[in-house]
Parts: sequence; C-alpha cells; structure tokens
Amino acid sequence: MIVTVTPNPALDVTYAVPALRPHTTHRVDAVHEQAGGKGVNVARVLHTLGRPTTALLPLGGPTGDVVRAELDRSGLPYLSVPLRSRAATRRTVTVVDEADATVLNEPGPELTAEDWAAVLAGAAGLLPAARALVLSGSLPRGLHPGAYGDLVRLAHRHGVPVVLDAGGAALTEALAARPTLVKPNAAELRDATGIADPLAAARVLADGGARAVVASLGPAGLLAVTPGGAWHAGLPEGRAVRGGNPTGAGDAAVAALAAALAGGSPWPQTLAEAVALSAAAVRAPYAGHFDRQAYLYDLPLVRLRPV
Amino acid sequence: MIVTVTPNPALDVTYAVPALRPHTTHRVDAVHEQAGGKGVNVARVLHTLGRPTTALLPLGGPTGDVVRAELDRSGLPYLSVPLRSRAATRRTVTVVDEADATVLNEPGPELTAEDWAAVLAGAAGLLPAARALVLSGSLPRGLHPGAYGDLVRLAHRHGVPVVLDAGGAALTEALAARPTLVKPNAAELRDATGIADPLAAARVLADGGARAVVASLGPAGLLAVTPGGAWHAGLPEGRAVRGGNPTGAGDAAVAALAAALAGGSPWPQTLAEAVALSAAAVRAPYAGHFDRQAYLYDLPLVRLRPV
Repeated sequence: MIVTVTPNPALDVTYAVPALRPHTTHRVDAVHEQAGGKGVNVARVLHTLGRPTTALLPLGGPTGDVVRAELDRSGLPYLSVPLRSRAATRRTVTVVDEADATVLNEPGPELTAEDWAAVLAGAAGLLPAARALVLSGSLPRGLHPGAYGDLVRLAHRHGVPVVLDAGGAALTEALAARPTLVKPNAAELRDATGIADPLAAARVLADGGARAVVASLGPAGLLAVTPGGAWHAGLPEGRAVRGGNPTGAGDAAVAALAAALAGGSPWPQTLAEAVALSAAAVRAPYAGHFDRQAYLYDLPLVRLRPV
Repeated sequence: MIVTVTPNPALDVTYAVPALRPHTTHRVDAVHEQAGGKGVNVARVLHTLGRPTTALLPLGGPTGDVVRAELDRSGLPYLSVPLRSRAATRRTVTVVDEADATVLNEPGPELTAEDWAAVLAGAAGLLPAARALVLSGSLPRGLHPGAYGDLVRLAHRHGVPVVLDAGGAALTEALAARPTLVKPNAAELRDATGIADPLAAARVLADGGARAVVASLGPAGLLAVTPGGAWHAGLPEGRAVRGGNPTGAGDAAVAALAAALAGGSPWPQTLAEAVALSAAAVRAPYAGHFDRQAYLYDLPLVRLRPV
C-alpha cells in the first residue's frame, strides 16, 4: 500500500465559462466538484492504476464533509483526521475557459499542534502496512516548516521510502530528515537553491539531504539526480503536451515515482512511467485523472539521456 | 413585517486578491461568506434598518446548511423550505481586486413542482402578518416563467402589496398578475420592452400591468412611473457613486421601496430614501450592507424632478 499525506487538502471546484473577463459577471455553464489537494490527486491516480493506496488528510467543516462524501462515492480509500477547531477545509476554484485555466486558492484552516499529532498518529497506524509514503503540497497555517521532517523520520523508523513534493521552507526544512526522493518543479527548484540551472540546483538538493531528486520541467520532461545516475527523460517534441493541467501532471509523476519506489523498479523504467503518466494527466480535465490510452501510447516513446 | 422571497438563493463567497489575472494561479488573501440572493440582501437591509422582516427561501445540500448557519448567526429571521432532491444551493464567487469585482454565478439546483408548492405554502403562512411582499432575483431551473405571478396573485388575495425585482420572462410573465411595483434595472427594462428610452420603456411596463415602475439607472439614480406621477430622483453629481457594489445597490433600493409600500409613505419621500439607501449600499463591500452615515448624509441631498 502507498500512503499519501495531504496536510492542506481542498474541495476542488471547477467552473466552465466561455471566456473569463475580469470585472464582468459570468453565468457558469457547468460546475465540477471533487476532493483535491496534491496527495489526494496522487492517491486517485494510484487507485486508477490499481495500486493499493490510502489518502491521509485532515478535514473540517462543511467543505470537509463534502470532500468526505466525494471520496466515499469515488471509492478512494482514505483516513480523515477531524480538525478539532471544526474550521472548514479550503476550496480551490478553477475557472476553465476556451484558452486556459485561472486558479483561485483559498488559504485553508490553521492546524493546531494537536491536529498535527493526530495526523502523525494516523500515519503511524498506516505505515506498518505501507511500501511508500508520499508527502504532497503546501503546509497549512499553524504548522512549523519542518513538519514534513516529522513524517520523513517516522517513515524511516518503519523502513518505508518517502517521496516529498513541496516547495519553499516545507522542502528545504525536510531535507535534513533525508527523504528518499524529492520532486520539485522548475520554480521550486530555483527558489529552494537560488540556482537557475536545473541540474546544478538538483545536485545541491541531493547534497543537502535528498537521496534522489526528480525535477519536473513541464513539457520538457523530468530531470533525475539519483545514487544510480543522472538522467533527463522526456517525450519527443511531437508528443510533448503544452497547456493542459499542470497540477495534475506533477501529481501523476509523483504517483509513478512512488509506485516505482514501492515496487523497487529500476530508475530508467521509473522515469519513463513518470513522464508518460504525467503527459497523460495533462490531457485530462481534472487533477488526479489521466488519459489511459495516451499513457500506454507514450510509454515506449519516452527518451532517456544520461546527463 | 416585510416578507422577501428568494427562489434561487446562494452562498455568496467573496475572494480578495491584489489583481485578477486570467490564466494564472492566485493565492486568495481573504475569504468572506454570507447568505445571498437578492431577496436575502433586501431582508438584510430591512433588518439593519430595524424593520421587521422574514426571508423565505428554498435551501438544499451542504451549501444550504452553510447558508442556514450564517442566517442563524446574523439574526436575520428566515423561513427555509428544504429541497426534496437535496440538491445543493448554488454558490456565487465574487473576486474583488483593486480595480473592481468579477462575478461567477453557479446555475443553482432545479426546483420541482413540489418544491415550488412548498415555497407557496410558506408564503401563504407568512402573508397574513405581512405588510409587503418582495420577489427578487432569477427563477431557478425547473420553474415556469410565470412562477412569480403565482406569488403576486397570492399576495393580492391577502391584500399585501408586492415588489417584483426580476428581469426577462420572470418579469414580463408576472405583469398580467399586476404587481404593485416592479424594479427593473436599465438593461432589464430595455430587454423586457425592446425600447432604449427608459421613460418610454417604463410606461410600456406600466401599461402592461405593473401599477408602478421604478427603474434603477445606476449612478444616474431612479426613474419612477407611478399612478401619482412620474419622477426622476438622483444625487447631485458630486455625491453619485461610480463603481462599487451594483448588486447591493439594487437590493437596497428595493428594501426602501418595500418599506415605503408597507408604511404608506408618499412617492417623493419613498424615492429619496431609495436613492440614498442605494448609494449607501454601493459604498459597502458586500450586498445587503450599507454605509449608514452616507445614507443619513445623502438623504436630504436627493433631487426629485417630475418627468
């Protein structure tokens, strides 16, 4: 089983409109709602792939109830920790028009030390049966920036590999706990290191404590710095997808990486799966979903190049 | 007591961002939530003015529960009719940046004939104690365009005057039932009659069945065609407010008009109150609220001119 932790989950609301025009009134044609947050998206991809998974997430208030109801309907296994404050789980609103998506992210509720202790207790309960732990997304207000480090150390005590997908202090403060793999995107890599060159920046994160670094570079693919070598993996120009759903793309890459860590796949195979799944997720309208046919078509096309 | 009916109420969500930029991701600085829909806003203004009022509205699903909880906290008297389908009450999302507001209106749930019968039954229960009935906003999906006519006729049977604030077929189909007053805005007036000149258009609505027509013309004030005469009422140029909150402005005007109908005030006094309250609502950040000091300051400044 792969456990994903989403400290700041969301009710993802997607609105379809013909065109978003600032400072006007829009009639929304269609409303889509689903449980969201990066770790939830990762678990949804794993579940669709048929990999046993459990999403661990704190939930509160009426939006938390809606998230729980959607997870129940979708059949995605989860363990929710009720927020003591009953503060409401945040929403994200994505307005999709004919050109692209516009995203509005609510800040989300503050977590207390007791709430975080309950999340850690939930993880401790799940880790004995886990083969990988995924830590994904921003830390909610109220948590210290080293909070992910608590979970990395807990996983190590159970001998479970950890994938961390976060940016800023949530990433840099967790490095000391030696996560098995970190998956920054290009902006997070640059912000965390102050270095513009992705390869040099990834080596700095590896030197800083991450055992492996896989950076997602959007349509340019993935850059991996691992104990077994460093590679660039990407699709040939004609199959690389521009535009689409970048949140879902990063989360699908994390799902593939976690599945590989759980199964002990070799790095080249792992990276090919991550690239193909990520591209297939860009083609799907909502995060946590992917185009299965595109995935199977692209998998043998991924090009791997040592760097 | 003044009863307001809001057939398609909403959970109004307001997001503050520095600037709304289409096709980018925004961190929302502040989230405000309140019960909304035009009739709810009217009732909130009346309640703040110290006028006895009850808001009648169908509610469903988790957003309906949030609306109910906010009404409970705010102390605004209401009667809610639970939707049999349990379909969720809609949300509206208003993104306020430093320039202006961008509004996204969800369509809202479909009402069945049974739901509408329950709303009519709720109105029938409140009308014996009512001195005015306000019908405000769009009709939900599933209702025939003459639905407001049902309520107008019900009010007439109780001898209660009716203010109707709606556009399109919801307005034109209700005229045959002879509402006491209709309050279209400039666009609704033009759409309903096909006539660009507001005075000529208002006279057409009056000929069509409305006993009085008060059109809201934004910063240009109000135009009234009544059995007692026709007037333009507005603030002098220096006090007219541009930009701001136009939804709240129309609803505040309706509150003043309904209070005057309930109390039997003469038209000139009524129109002055409606103009001043409307301008004071434009100055408030959320619909249903108004700037009390601006209201008291502007009231004696309103200029009335027979047309």
